[in-house]
Amino acid sequence: RINPDRLWDSLMEMAKIGPGVAGGNNRQTLTDADGEGRHLFKKWCEEAGLTMGVDQMGTMFARREGTDPDALPVYVGSHLDTQPTGGKYDGVLGVLGGLEVVRTLNDLGIRTKHPIVVTNWTNEEGTRFAPAMLAAGVFAGMHDQDWAYDRRDKDGKRFGDELERIGWKGEEEVGKRKMHAFFELHIEQGPILEDEGIDIGVVTHGQGLWWLQVTLTGKDAHTGSTPMPKRRNAGLGMARVTELVHEVAMDYQPDAVGAVGHVEVYPNSRNVIPGKAVFTIDIRCPDKAILDEMRARIEAGIATICEALDISFEVEPVGHFDPVTFDEGCVKAVRDAAERLGYSHRDIVSGAGHDACWINRVAPTAMVMCPCVGGLSHNEAEEISKEWARAGADVLFHAVVETAGI
Amino acid sequence: RINPDRLWDSLMEMAKIGPGVAGGNNRQTLTDADGEGRHLFKKWCEEAGLTMGVDQMGTMFARREGTDPDALPVYVGSHLDTQPTGGKYDGVLGVLGGLEVVRTLNDLGIRTKHPIVVTNWTNEEGTRFAPAMLAAGVFAGMHDQDWAYDRRDKDGKRFGDELERIGWKGEEEVGKRKMHAFFELHIEQGPILEDEGIDIGVVTHGQGLWWLQVTLTGKDAHTGSTPMPKRRNAGLGMARVTELVHEVAMDYQPDAVGAVGHVEVYPNSRNVIPGKAVFTIDIRCPDKAILDEMRARIEAGIATICEALDISFEVEPVGHFDPVTFDEGCVKAVRDAAERLGYSHRDIVSGAGHDACWINRVAPTAMVMCPCVGGLSHNEAEEISKEWARAGADVLFHAVVETAGI
Ligand SMILES: NC(=O)NCCC(=O)O
Ligand SMILES: NC(=O)NCCC(=O)O
Repeated sequence: RINPDRLWDSLMEMAKIGPGVAGGNNRQTLTDADGEGRHLFKKWCEEAGLTMGVDQMGTMFARREGTDPDALPVYVGSHLDTQPTGGKYDGVLGVLGGLEVVRTLNDLGIRTKHPIVVTNWTNEEGTRFAPAMLAAGVFAGMHDQDWAYDRRDKDGKRFGDELERIGWKGEEEVGKRKMHAFFELHIEQGPILEDEGIDIGVVTHGQGLWWLQVTLTGKDAHTGSTPMPKRRNAGLGMARVTELVHEVAMDYQPDAVGAVGHVEVYPNSRNVIPGKAVFTIDIRCPDKAILDEMRARIEAGIATICEALDISFEVEPVGHFDPVTFDEGCVKAVRDAAERLGYSHRDIVSGAGHDACWINRVAPTAMVMCPCVGGLSHNEAEEISKEWARAGADVLFHAVVETAGI
Repeated sequence: RINPDRLWDSLMEMAKIGPGVAGGNNRQTLTDADGEGRHLFKKWCEEAGLTMGVDQMGTMFARREGTDPDALPVYVGSHLDTQPTGGKYDGVLGVLGGLEVVRTLNDLGIRTKHPIVVTNWTNEEGTRFAPAMLAAGVFAGMHDQDWAYDRRDKDGKRFGDELERIGWKGEEEVGKRKMHAFFELHIEQGPILEDEGIDIGVVTHGQGLWWLQVTLTGKDAHTGSTPMPKRRNAGLGMARVTELVHEVAMDYQPDAVGAVGHVEVYPNSRNVIPGKAVFTIDIRCPDKAILDEMRARIEAGIATICEALDISFEVEPVGHFDPVTFDEGCVKAVRDAAERLGYSHRDIVSGAGHDACWINRVAPTAMVMCPCVGGLSHNEAEEISKEWARAGADVLFHAVVETAGI
């Protein structure tokens, strides 16, 4: 069993870097705080006797040697970057849980057959640079690396430049590593486990997602002196599309979700009818056919809304993944571990995207989930108990060691 | 008659200061560009033999002496500040039209009985610091000066500090000046005059306005993993209120207008359900009873919308004026001037707020309007013809000189 106090202390240490304004974190990808968090993680890995590799996407791979020189490593990890107003556990628990696995193996003096590599994937959150899970996506061959370098944040800064600036652009070619398996521990970010009083979610599937960036162009004009029939109000168009996204998601209950999270209107002045609105739609569903139907309905609805308001539109997909089915063997290893340790568990579908969703395409992959208070995540008030963290890391430890062999 | 080429050249010179990105201007109040525009205006005033006074709100008063030492001055002017993506004429035409009046008097060697004071009112637009017409409002005793100093822009900068920073906080007590009359020339900012092919709008009334700043508070949470029924989506609330404002304005056609122009959602991340939205409603009507009814309907609707979404709300009025009836005598002076000069004219209601709307409370006031292309304003593409500017300034000249006496 892992050491829950040590795991918790590390979580609290990491949370001191890039503090938020309400008890959580703002350690967005490729900021100075991200760089600082990476240094702390590297230090801890070196203290645990691991060797650090960094690839050209900045992903960190901390390796513990195995006894069989021909055996492929078992990978374990998640991400250290956070939302702008994010929690202390989303991603971090999976990275430091992986570190706790090797620290526990060190305590016990166990050497596994397969090497173990603790991993911190770059830019999982996708807030600063869309899409989410960017480095894992390049690793899995889903995105071109140069395309990834060219992603820009809202100030126009390039991903590639920012990666260099914080000093974490490695030499290693991305995606060359072959994996025996990949395991990711993560908080649920939803309410099911807590509501049902269950310790462990055995993640069998992940939802699919579309992120659609919509640009509506009307005409900015004076709010007071422009007659109502002469208006081409892009802000009103955005309002109608926001309602549409909600309605479409409600039509496929309980199997779908959707919302508009990122919004800009221009010129954003109290007495100017917005001439332009740029915003992002996030829709998700575990069923690919429904997900694509949602997208089609929304795009058709945007066209109708814009025609009525005499405004033009562009819809650009800026993030996408299909629903995921995780590897049967790895999922079984997680379920067996929970069973063996006596933790209550249930199969669960991940509502969020995870690095594991991309890595599942190139290696046998599974995920372990633990509850979080009120199902709340992407909020500084995100919280878990030490007991929940312990159960998750225990199950991770057993699944990893079982798969890596002794 | 005034000199249309000189007026036009001055308009084009002023437009070089604080250029926009699409042919218009971004010379927002109390920015460095505003300071530079003030210096140019001051230089022109001094060249025309005027004496400059500046009050504690930064309003500029350039005086041409009259022949009667006991006569109160006739004031003429408007504002030099612009929207963030504003035009070259909104406000500027009224200030430089006033300057053209005294330049023409100089050319003709005429001294009026009453002094003439050309005025540039501080912060008419209200975009950087709400409310609009701030300095004119303090002058007319509608706002407290310390309250005005405490207005903050979106970066938290105080009006009073910014006024000092650009070096235009004068010594003179605000509102002490007594006026014989005030005249303001302005572009219509709406389509009526151009549509009807009329040279001059004789402004008899102005619409009333409410600016309501709305803060909706729900809970930011993960877009992917938060079930639809558990959401408290402040962004969806904002969308519904935006639609409501539109519906209410449409219900009082053609007598009312309304829109949401300024919008912020938090944390503004693609995969976070907005936990907070802050936005401003702008509603207007020439009929006070209808205007107040619109406000009541919107506030009741906000309560209903928020209850359904389980979000809380605050509504704070950040700008208000009642509908205005301009002074009969001054209005007649404008109408007679247009008639005498042979310009086509009609009575008109101002859709926008103007410094004249506040000054009307403390002095006999009227406005002259000229057409603008497509009725477009608060847009960098705002345009007028030199002929329209000439007609407006000619009428202004005659109304002012008639009122000031020879
Ligand atoms: N786990 C997580 O929050 N990932 C970010 C990508 C997503 O929005 O699902
Ligand atoms: N004239 C003008 O655009 N004034 C700004 C205040 C308003 O929105 O009416």
